[in-house]
Amino acid sequence: MGRVTRRGQVTKFRTDGTTSKREDVLAGEEPLEIRVQGRSFTVTMRTPGDDFDLVAGFLVSEGIIWEPGQLISLRYCSGVDESGQQTFNVVDVQLRPDTALPDTAMERHVYTSSSCGICGTASIEAVRKSSHYSVGDDDVRVALPVLAGLPEQLRKQQKIFDRTGGVHAAGLFDAEGTLLCLREDVGRHNAVDKVVGWALRAGLLPLRGTVLQVSGRASFELVQKAQLAGIPLLAAVSAPSSLSVELAQDAGMTLVGFSRGTSLNCYAFPERISA
Amino acid sequence: MGRVTRRGQVTKFRTDGTTSKREDVLAGEEPLEIRVQGRSFTVTMRTPGDDFDLVAGFLVSEGIIWEPGQLISLRYCSGVDESGQQTFNVVDVQLRPDTALPDTAMERHVYTSSSCGICGTASIEAVRKSSHYSVGDDDVRVALPVLAGLPEQLRKQQKIFDRTGGVHAAGLFDAEGTLLCLREDVGRHNAVDKVVGWALRAGLLPLRGTVLQVSGRASFELVQKAQLAGIPLLAAVSAPSSLSVELAQDAGMTLVGFSRGTSLNCYAFPERISA
Repeated sequence: MGRVTRRGQVTKFRTDGTTSKREDVLAGEEPLEIRVQGRSFTVTMRTPGDDFDLVAGFLVSEGIIWEPGQLISLRYCSGVDESGQQTFNVVDVQLRPDTALPDTAMERHVYTSSSCGICGTASIEAVRKSSHYSVGDDDVRVALPVLAGLPEQLRKQQKIFDRTGGVHAAGLFDAEGTLLCLREDVGRHNAVDKVVGWALRAGLLPLRGTVLQVSGRASFELVQKAQLAGIPLLAAVSAPSSLSVELAQDAGMTLVGFSRGTSLNCYAFPERISA
Repeated sequence: MGRVTRRGQVTKFRTDGTTSKREDVLAGEEPLEIRVQGRSFTVTMRTPGDDFDLVAGFLVSEGIIWEPGQLISLRYCSGVDESGQQTFNVVDVQLRPDTALPDTAMERHVYTSSSCGICGTASIEAVRKSSHYSVGDDDVRVALPVLAGLPEQLRKQQKIFDRTGGVHAAGLFDAEGTLLCLREDVGRHNAVDKVVGWALRAGLLPLRGTVLQVSGRASFELVQKAQLAGIPLLAAVSAPSSLSVELAQDAGMTLVGFSRGTSLNCYAFPERISA
């Protein structure tokens, strides 16, 4: 383990003509192979750390599990690299036998549609996963000053970012702005999966009454992850996409973008924000 | 088509207590299903536009094709949405019959390893794709002022970003800093695939003597895409990860991060930068 960050040599060039060499700290990025019931399911590039949360959250985000009881066990596969070190890059997960794997079985990202005539619609349907939790009826209210202050709270507590300047973060907060869980990763989606997986394993799903603050943009994928975890309010520091707004409107989720301390934009269900 | 951007209603909240509603422009994000030889291969979330370049570049990045002759045809599948509009969200690609699809056939992101004892190493090997082009012997030199000026050039020519504030960009430049191709997308990897696909279709691979400037971080995935396209210098505005540095060092590629106008950090092969 201990590869959350790595040291490297860097040559700094400045346009004033000076050049210097120094040690730099890099955000760790390594592949994690996820095996489900003994079969290879996916490989994701992630920052090592909180791997079991990542795997659990990934399975929630894929719509495969939604209760802690569906997760029988999580373990690292024993495996060593060339120098004889355990790699901790393969996690084997055993799910309760009644857990249905997706129709497309082992083929994540591969969707088949029955006929070409409906292919456009079919492929959009295929990327929308049905959620076991509804967020539309969550009547949480968050005060604007609390919501607008979350990016700064997130940033202040980003330990890996402080050292590397190169990771995304996802923070789960309650409606009063108290931090419940913060995770960092080179991948935005992984940071969210780590938070969701933590919540599943702690028996906290659905995450009613909570706010998920993310460091980057709000893509379709992140809105979907929030929906599958039952989170009623997703706030991003940067822009949402067209499809993320569409999904939030459809799901009854409050979607906030460009949250910049003194102002923020709300793209769906502003009524959860009390000014 | 024409869904590169979309209009939406936004409620702007300010911490001074004022609230206003206005129209906003959102970056388009829609699924694109890629079919190879008639079979569904993958679905990617992308900003519509330059879809054929995206598909061609994706196939280069997967190590499946590397010459324009391997690409027989690209066409949109006819398909309509609920309102009877053609969706343009499914592209069917015909490859030359001698083109080998990956061992894992239709299963992108799914890698099997023969035994658990070597699984860690095997999964890392699985994410490294062999490149038909070498970049280590490319003796291009780029002057520091040219290289340091690329992020600003990129930013100035980002048309979708100007309207939405929410897309990534990848720009291909020659060693004198002349822009050859710029593409934008909600996904960083898509922006790069669109550039690479453009180059493949224009018969320009390998991209010897060029520089690829990207707007975000330099992940492992982007370094690999650059390597498969034969690009000797990758520069990012933000941080690289540990694995991207490792791969660049291995591939003989110059890797630059934190390119911020007056300074930049070089993590591998600084000798291509002339101060």
